[in-house]
Amino acid sequence: MFRLTLLAISIAFSASSLASARNNEPIQPIEPVVIENPDKVALGKQLFFDPRLSKSGFISCNSCHNLSMGGSDNLSSSIGHNWQQGPINSPTVLNSSMNVAQFWDGRAKTLKEQAGGPIANPIEMGFTHELVVEVLQSIPQYVANFEKVYQDKKVTIDYVTDAIAAFEETLVTPNSRFDLWLKGDDQAITAQEKSGYELFKSVGCIACHSGPAVGGTSFQKMGLVEEYQTKNPAEGVAGLTGNDLDRFKFKVPTLRNVELTYPYFHDGAYWTLEEAVDVMARLQLGRKLEESEIADITVFLKTLTGEQPQLQLPILPPSNADTPRPQPFKP
Amino acid sequence: MFRLTLLAISIAFSASSLASARNNEPIQPIEPVVIENPDKVALGKQLFFDPRLSKSGFISCNSCHNLSMGGSDNLSSSIGHNWQQGPINSPTVLNSSMNVAQFWDGRAKTLKEQAGGPIANPIEMGFTHELVVEVLQSIPQYVANFEKVYQDKKVTIDYVTDAIAAFEETLVTPNSRFDLWLKGDDQAITAQEKSGYELFKSVGCIACHSGPAVGGTSFQKMGLVEEYQTKNPAEGVAGLTGNDLDRFKFKVPTLRNVELTYPYFHDGAYWTLEEAVDVMARLQLGRKLEESEIADITVFLKTLTGEQPQLQLPILPPSNADTPRPQPFKP
Repeated sequence: MFRLTLLAISIAFSASSLASARNNEPIQPIEPVVIENPDKVALGKQLFFDPRLSKSGFISCNSCHNLSMGGSDNLSSSIGHNWQQGPINSPTVLNSSMNVAQFWDGRAKTLKEQAGGPIANPIEMGFTHELVVEVLQSIPQYVANFEKVYQDKKVTIDYVTDAIAAFEETLVTPNSRFDLWLKGDDQAITAQEKSGYELFKSVGCIACHSGPAVGGTSFQKMGLVEEYQTKNPAEGVAGLTGNDLDRFKFKVPTLRNVELTYPYFHDGAYWTLEEAVDVMARLQLGRKLEESEIADITVFLKTLTGEQPQLQLPILPPSNADTPRPQPFKP
Repeated sequence: MFRLTLLAISIAFSASSLASARNNEPIQPIEPVVIENPDKVALGKQLFFDPRLSKSGFISCNSCHNLSMGGSDNLSSSIGHNWQQGPINSPTVLNSSMNVAQFWDGRAKTLKEQAGGPIANPIEMGFTHELVVEVLQSIPQYVANFEKVYQDKKVTIDYVTDAIAAFEETLVTPNSRFDLWLKGDDQAITAQEKSGYELFKSVGCIACHSGPAVGGTSFQKMGLVEEYQTKNPAEGVAGLTGNDLDRFKFKVPTLRNVELTYPYFHDGAYWTLEEAVDVMARLQLGRKLEESEIADITVFLKTLTGEQPQLQLPILPPSNADTPRPQPFKP
């Protein structure tokens, strides 16, 4: 009887909860991740934090996609091997599995494909896939971890990038205040934040920044109405296609956790959300927003900060006598 | 009655446990840490992982004292601001509260004093104490955290280094297999590991490497019997005192977790424990060890690897519009 009553209350609560959920909005809540292969995710986490994936032994995936800092490095462009300056702003790894493709120009179709890029890029981690495999193959604990996941004693770059991608897929940020509001909690956002959201839709930001990631699903020209002034030479998708129509076409970034992922745009030229909102409205929508409108949209954007992944710092297995040594100062 | 029986069993067990503990050994077990001020430790952890304590916004304490890698960077010498090469091997931060003083030459008496050094060192984090304070003071969440711990709305470098030191004091590694053996568990180490320990004592390593940290308590000349060949110009304590007798005198490093803290010596010139044991025996003790003796001592040394600190990766509060920006590429 007691259990039946509880069940009835529970059903009633769910029903009322569902009734008030905002299912017709152009933004959908992020759902918590369900980890299907914890061994693979744990291995991927080790690799993500392991600087031995770089020539120097100093730079890991986490160096530029810092999970203490919104999955980004909060620099205009990243620092790579030998302190080389990267060509473009480091995008957040958070919720990156929701992107239609990876990198600003979308040149990697998947997270797995992306993961191999920086390792072998001479101005990022400056290493080679062959040497990464040699390093990992020389470390018994890694070999055991790979074997557990892939039933293979031979480490391959394919396994390495697959495991990193599996870890990255877990880096979602559910339960932002905006998501709680979407799910029916009227008190989760303030009146000003709600006004900001209404403006975000009516002004037209929503045209590109929609879906669960509030972006990440299309490519758009940076400077649609008015040209974007930048010293950054990146040409976006045109760099891949050679097509002049693709010049300055970049992947629309996610706005999830945008409060944490400054500075903004592919050149990382703007450090505040207020500036970024102003520039976007003018250049993409041909609209000069009032200061109060910018303020409203900015407070709305801050409601998109979700629960950051709670991660235990991985302990990395030590190198072995025959592990290729890092070469931080070798040209 | 039941409780009394349990108590009796418990007392009996403790007594038997005490009876078999090895209390007269020159090495003592590391005890787990008792955290007295969790707010201060949490703040110190944030600061330890925060690259905004450097000019570039890229280098944190954890960059060179990586808690995924035995509290060291596993490089011969560290990489600093603008990829400058550090002058000396980065010592582990693990169990560093047990050191008689900090740095290889002991120039900082305390962890608190040490913490301020790398921040302002132009070839390490390349920043200034004033700018660190300005950065932290501009971030409301940090200000709130400092106020909670120090009852002061004004951030000072004194609080910054105090909090970092408080966090570092928690970085102890108890329950190594050797410690379990010291506490009476006969099965915790193998016969070969025990032989290695006996050799470690009889050969004379124990003269300097004793106490709970198996070192860290004295300064000794590197190359006592035979001169140490190195390209590293560090002169040790003589660099502070100007006294010729202090040339090449360095703090004896802890051997706790030595399996994880390669490469070895102040110049990080040796990558394997076998080499390090051989060199130490020859240069400090005038003794050429047999290969089997080196092997025995090496397996003993690996029993000193303790439980690594289990840390939740801290989430850092975002910068503000008026936070001084990182200057990674500014001369």
